[in-house]
Amino acid sequence: MPTLKDVALAAKVSTATVSLVLNGKNSVSPKTTERVLAAIDELGYRPNMVARSFKTKQTKTIAILVPTITNPIYPAFIHVVEMEARREGYTIILCSYDDGSGPVQTDFLEDLYDRNVDGIIVCGIFNIPKEGNTRKLERIMKAYVNRKTPFVFYSEEEQLQYFIQRSNIDMGVHAALFHTLSIDRNQASYEAVKHLVTSGHRRIALVSESTRFLFPHNIPYMKKLEGYQRALEEANIPFDDALVIAGSDDYRGGAQCFVELQNLENPPTAYVCTGDTLALGVLHAAKNSGKIVPDEISVIGFDNIPVASYWNPKLSTIAVPIETIAREAFKRLYLLMNEFESPPNRLMFDTELVIRESSV
Amino acid sequence: MPTLKDVALAAKVSTATVSLVLNGKNSVSPKTTERVLAAIDELGYRPNMVARSFKTKQTKTIAILVPTITNPIYPAFIHVVEMEARREGYTIILCSYDDGSGPVQTDFLEDLYDRNVDGIIVCGIFNIPKEGNTRKLERIMKAYVNRKTPFVFYSEEEQLQYFIQRSNIDMGVHAALFHTLSIDRNQASYEAVKHLVTSGHRRIALVSESTRFLFPHNIPYMKKLEGYQRALEEANIPFDDALVIAGSDDYRGGAQCFVELQNLENPPTAYVCTGDTLALGVLHAAKNSGKIVPDEISVIGFDNIPVASYWNPKLSTIAVPIETIAREAFKRLYLLMNEFESPPNRLMFDTELVIRESSV
Repeated sequence: MPTLKDVALAAKVSTATVSLVLNGKNSVSPKTTERVLAAIDELGYRPNMVARSFKTKQTKTIAILVPTITNPIYPAFIHVVEMEARREGYTIILCSYDDGSGPVQTDFLEDLYDRNVDGIIVCGIFNIPKEGNTRKLERIMKAYVNRKTPFVFYSEEEQLQYFIQRSNIDMGVHAALFHTLSIDRNQASYEAVKHLVTSGHRRIALVSESTRFLFPHNIPYMKKLEGYQRALEEANIPFDDALVIAGSDDYRGGAQCFVELQNLENPPTAYVCTGDTLALGVLHAAKNSGKIVPDEISVIGFDNIPVASYWNPKLSTIAVPIETIAREAFKRLYLLMNEFESPPNRLMFDTELVIRESSV
Repeated sequence: MPTLKDVALAAKVSTATVSLVLNGKNSVSPKTTERVLAAIDELGYRPNMVARSFKTKQTKTIAILVPTITNPIYPAFIHVVEMEARREGYTIILCSYDDGSGPVQTDFLEDLYDRNVDGIIVCGIFNIPKEGNTRKLERIMKAYVNRKTPFVFYSEEEQLQYFIQRSNIDMGVHAALFHTLSIDRNQASYEAVKHLVTSGHRRIALVSESTRFLFPHNIPYMKKLEGYQRALEEANIPFDDALVIAGSDDYRGGAQCFVELQNLENPPTAYVCTGDTLALGVLHAAKNSGKIVPDEISVIGFDNIPVASYWNPKLSTIAVPIETIAREAFKRLYLLMNEFESPPNRLMFDTELVIRESSV
């Protein structure tokens, strides 16, 4: 491959002049600029970005961390971030942190640090090391804040607080580097249950994705549980923990939860699910067992993934403005990476209960 | 952040010794190695990977190019590649090359070249510049082969041939860098249509994703079309191009195609779709229009995405062993990146027609 020197030689200028042209400086005359560009084109010179990032300290790379891309809500999020990022010349590193490889999130952060990513977007429940086991996390996060690498979380403020606390970051100094975008999961869940209560349901199940080792730090789930309990209390329906159940975060998980719950002596007539794939799995299993939806069984999902409105029956769900959130996530990261002024570091988005055919 | 020098100072060794330890060389005594590792741990030293890749010429980064991640077949593929790659210490750059940003694939290749990716996996119909417009592609691909960067395509051999030809790569020299994994799309499509013909269908539609500017170089589609035509010919059913139609590659696209085809004077009774999301969109629209599946309308998809077997009715489809293909794609890339011996550079995988509830 031709080098910067070759270009300089061909254009009859100094390598410094070639650098100025490459970096878009105006200090080079139009005529010389044209000659340099012609030489670049002629020789097929490509600036070495690895060498370049060495100098500029920017790699134009961001990382997106999601639990898994097999739940369609995350591809929908990534899709928007990728398009927005590309427009600004950024490339995306994808990390699925919960794909069966266990609690290795600190390792991801370490690897991404070594790769000099300019910023990080984290979706969902990033695992946090146990107390007494935070030395590595503290070290990595200290390095990140020293480098001023911004983080945008799509999660819950309290989730971030746990993370910050275990990372031992001085938020008095570094708060501006950490943004949280969230939705009111408590209220969304409350509204779904209230809707079912109003329709006369008394046995309402809460089906969630398996949360394994994450309790009690899975705040997004805890919020949904609180909203569920609040609506029951308000209707004087006693809380029955046999109706609160978790499965794998996919169609199969939802189907299994349905079968398990239907085997109860007093099975539920309504299902509130913490994700749409779970809810669609419930619908599938309900049909298999000969139950009529919504006459005998009502189901409400969460997220409003594209397939929800194409299902038979169409899924009632809580619509999350995932594209708007994704757009805002990149926008904030961009402002922070480039040290522009950014808005207050917390933003809450509205959700909407959408009643379709799967519930009465 | 502490530097290599700081580590050397703390461990009372030379920086060269620290380097040897970091690179896992055995020439350093166990005692010294331990002292260096202790110093690294104590100081929280992180080797700078950008500086490092400068020397080793490896970035431990691969790129995956897919048309879009909003079609669930691609997350399924990426998921497996990501897990396999991580096991070997590689990180993934994701590029959705067909997400509405037009024919910019050459730009992707250019950006990834500048990022020194160690290898590239390409899924689907990578856009190829028109004749007379290949200068940039030629230059980039020449640079890639000089660097010995391997490519694994999940596409069709002929598709790769177009790409190679337009890139002006000397395959006598560089063939080993280009691998193709494929499936027999002609045969798969033939079998689906034959199944429908055997059931008595005479009006069979072929619904595909919009292929826009790609004709006639969309080989995967052409193969499916050929299989469709072959089965019709064999059954003495005249080809009717009004039954061959394309829409956007999602549920909506399938639904729109159904509506359009049902408006024909002599509408089809069976639909063969080139993707499952299209097929599920057809099922959705069929239900909306009051058609009974499979009594009045039969539908067969392609891919067997997870949701296919959870749908109501369960979707008949052509099962593609996407996880096996993804695993093989990374395995080959890995062998090539590390200059191990690799198998012959073409491999064909079997598909299977799975008849469920959406067809008779």
